[in-house]
Amino acid sequence: MIITSKDNAHFRRWLSLHSSKGTNKYQQFLIFGEKVINEAFSQQNIQLTEILTPTNATGSLNFPTKNLKHYELSSQLFKQIDLFGTNHPIIVAQKPSLQAWSPTSTSDGLTLLCPIGNPDNLGSLIRSATAFGVESFVLLKEACSPFHPKSVRSSSGTLWKQNFFSGPSIHDIQPTQDNWFALDAKGTPLPQVKWHEQKRIILLVGEEGPGLPNNLKNNLNLLSVPIMSDIESLNATIATSIALYEIKKGAILARRD
Amino acid sequence: MIITSKDNAHFRRWLSLHSSKGTNKYQQFLIFGEKVINEAFSQQNIQLTEILTPTNATGSLNFPTKNLKHYELSSQLFKQIDLFGTNHPIIVAQKPSLQAWSPTSTSDGLTLLCPIGNPDNLGSLIRSATAFGVESFVLLKEACSPFHPKSVRSSSGTLWKQNFFSGPSIHDIQPTQDNWFALDAKGTPLPQVKWHEQKRIILLVGEEGPGLPNNLKNNLNLLSVPIMSDIESLNATIATSIALYEIKKGAILARRD
Repeated sequence: MIITSKDNAHFRRWLSLHSSKGTNKYQQFLIFGEKVINEAFSQQNIQLTEILTPTNATGSLNFPTKNLKHYELSSQLFKQIDLFGTNHPIIVAQKPSLQAWSPTSTSDGLTLLCPIGNPDNLGSLIRSATAFGVESFVLLKEACSPFHPKSVRSSSGTLWKQNFFSGPSIHDIQPTQDNWFALDAKGTPLPQVKWHEQKRIILLVGEEGPGLPNNLKNNLNLLSVPIMSDIESLNATIATSIALYEIKKGAILARRD
Repeated sequence: MIITSKDNAHFRRWLSLHSSKGTNKYQQFLIFGEKVINEAFSQQNIQLTEILTPTNATGSLNFPTKNLKHYELSSQLFKQIDLFGTNHPIIVAQKPSLQAWSPTSTSDGLTLLCPIGNPDNLGSLIRSATAFGVESFVLLKEACSPFHPKSVRSSSGTLWKQNFFSGPSIHDIQPTQDNWFALDAKGTPLPQVKWHEQKRIILLVGEEGPGLPNNLKNNLNLLSVPIMSDIESLNATIATSIALYEIKKGAILARRD
């Protein structure tokens, strides 16, 4: 059966998966693009459920589709779902449920607490966090869904390799130990901390725009990226990626030797 | 006179300034948002020419406008120009002409050669380059215009502080000296180079997607950002920002002491 009506319930569900709200409502998300889809098929921990193709699709599907329900859409409806114009089959997947995070459950290594609300930026930060081996990625209430299509895309398929938790609002955070860090223009320059001596690190990212809540600034260790003094700040995703690099580079190089 | 027709020649010119093509054709660009506009007014080297407001604007203009030609637009037309929905007056500025770059004219410090075609990413990289004190920013043929509205916005008003040159295509580049560097997964890890001993550095950024042309890989020094081995790569803007940080952090911290 080919879906041709924009009032079709499936079509409306898929369209709603373009937003964080829809992915939360249906507990599903969309995967676009050959590269990211191939990555998804190679993962054990992601349950893929549906495959969408346009009626005018040519060639055969070159990935295993036996457990997927296949829907054909009219060319016009497919284009509306195909947010990035990939003109490639689109996969619908089950959103994994995330464990709640608490500071006491934090294991060794680097835990990142992230309130980033822009899905492009969140996806880029997930990509950086995975590249630098962040052990736990905590999504604060302010963060958008990592399963938003733009986040999935800018994570470049690294999403599946990340260990996500759901966390509190950035305004309800209460640092309890001396291993909490956050970026702030007035902090200790990143290269001046002996990162190899830190066994367990919790790094809190500020919100884009408002930055770090004032009440937290006295309750954790502030770090700064050394920049020219007359420039206001770096982009939050870039500043955080630089911090991850500085914290992790020693361990990554040691592992290679 | 209030502009109400979408066929008005001024309106069509402003609308075309949403693209790199239009900014190149008219040698003009648009500036959006209070913060970036205020930055622009404080700069000597940018010539501002026109100010656009909607007819329903309330309050007075709180910046000097005496040398600007003022146009009022119908609410509907203004919204079409107001790409980011700022609902704030929009400024039209003269695009500065860029000097041509040649390797022999390179002065001391860090020269960045950049082919980035996505204006959001180019703007973010301009912001990073300015924060880390890049001395010369060379726009290769493949780069989009830094005066594209999305680039102006993501540069966060740092655009005016950058020293731009126009350069050749990345495919016509011929590294001539041993001070040429580029990022590549197989390169020397960034922290292993003694950056304080390098007086003059030319850093070539690869294209998003295709990366570095193969013929260049044997002709310059390859650098890598140390990342976990099973991750393909970082976002190009983030990887380059990390390189700028690593190259410049020593000099920036020394200057502060």
